[in-house]
Amino acid sequence: MNKLYVVGLGPGSFEGMTLAAQSALNASDVIVGYTVYIDLIRAHFPDKEFRSTPMRREVDRVRMALEIAAEGRTVSMVCSGDAGVYGMSGLCEALLPEYPGVEIETVPGVSAMLSGAAILGAPLMHDFAVISLSDLLTPWEKIEKRLLAAAQADFVICLYNPSSRKRSDYLSRACDLVLRFASPETVCGIARNIGREGQQTRVLTLSELRDAETDMFSTVFIGNSETRIINGKMVTPRGYLHD
Amino acid sequence: MNKLYVVGLGPGSFEGMTLAAQSALNASDVIVGYTVYIDLIRAHFPDKEFRSTPMRREVDRVRMALEIAAEGRTVSMVCSGDAGVYGMSGLCEALLPEYPGVEIETVPGVSAMLSGAAILGAPLMHDFAVISLSDLLTPWEKIEKRLLAAAQADFVICLYNPSSRKRSDYLSRACDLVLRFASPETVCGIARNIGREGQQTRVLTLSELRDAETDMFSTVFIGNSETRIINGKMVTPRGYLHD
Repeated sequence: MNKLYVVGLGPGSFEGMTLAAQSALNASDVIVGYTVYIDLIRAHFPDKEFRSTPMRREVDRVRMALEIAAEGRTVSMVCSGDAGVYGMSGLCEALLPEYPGVEIETVPGVSAMLSGAAILGAPLMHDFAVISLSDLLTPWEKIEKRLLAAAQADFVICLYNPSSRKRSDYLSRACDLVLRFASPETVCGIARNIGREGQQTRVLTLSELRDAETDMFSTVFIGNSETRIINGKMVTPRGYLHD
Repeated sequence: MNKLYVVGLGPGSFEGMTLAAQSALNASDVIVGYTVYIDLIRAHFPDKEFRSTPMRREVDRVRMALEIAAEGRTVSMVCSGDAGVYGMSGLCEALLPEYPGVEIETVPGVSAMLSGAAILGAPLMHDFAVISLSDLLTPWEKIEKRLLAAAQADFVICLYNPSSRKRSDYLSRACDLVLRFASPETVCGIARNIGREGQQTRVLTLSELRDAETDMFSTVFIGNSETRIINGKMVTPRGYLHD
């Protein structure tokens, strides 16, 4: 069978992957991925062939995986978190028609919004919006519109790619937009290096978040109007307390 | 150690849980949960003590788990998907201060938005909003406001609890709100019984979704303006194709 598994590895440690992900990797002849993710799992699958391409070469990486599958070998393409959230599965599905006979199976993983929420407390107990601040593939005007809509409707907001060297002020700009509708005291959280060495969490107000430093290993959470701090954790209640 | 693990089991099969979830369950003396989820895992943990409470008795269930932990036994409270998304972890954190000495560790799992997306294709490649249509704990006006905001800002929308016997027309009402801003041809998807016997997917238009039947085992996806059908799958492109 010409099969490509698209596998989300979860937050960053081997323990964070699902049993189904482990089975897919065990069933594969070749494992393809960005070097950093390959290094996370290589020791656990010593008999596999590993292939990687540099960061940002997503199209090359997907074609490499699809070509290996087309040759009749079973291949897994791995990525961190979940392959379906700002991940590789869309590109795999989009290029698949060029490789007749290849079948894709996406194996979902724990995305950073879930693993970050777990170490911060329980911020995602209520409706939430997930927004990437990267304008590499999306015009900033569209990101801006989404931030305003999410804040106006009192969604909890989870921000992916809150900053990078080139976009050092994007998180501040995002906070300024949210502040048009939300209180400066809104409870927020930053989760960094989730499930890896150097894991950190910080619970802070929206006005503090505006001036906080984040990096490409950070996931940011902005609470809704009901989010509060309980025992130092960020918690969005969901009515149960009024039972 | 007085420890409570709050464990998301993933979509519905044993294979869908993470290795970390499996470790937490193995480390526990007692496993607490709603009967349906207990039955999913009981056979895999034959030496554990299981306790359950009926559905809707969430507060009782959490207090039961916290009391077992306070007695000095290690306990896992399990739920399907991820405990942090409309799940039990918020309630656990909220009640924790009444049980001094107990420590909570939340073990994240694959939520239905991720597992549903994986079998439908790749709908969540771009910014998305997650909204529950259950008005048990949320006024419908708030849900309505969020649906309109999400549609206006061209988010992909994932709907939890799209319908129940008491709320049979809620999905139609939600679609009518989204249709104020989105085309009737917008690509949508329904994932049902994800990861379990009877797993089904359906890709359809927004106007078809308006009249579609769903139930409490369904998760619904409404695409954004760029979502398309590729090879029968629901895919939201994210710019890669323009590389």
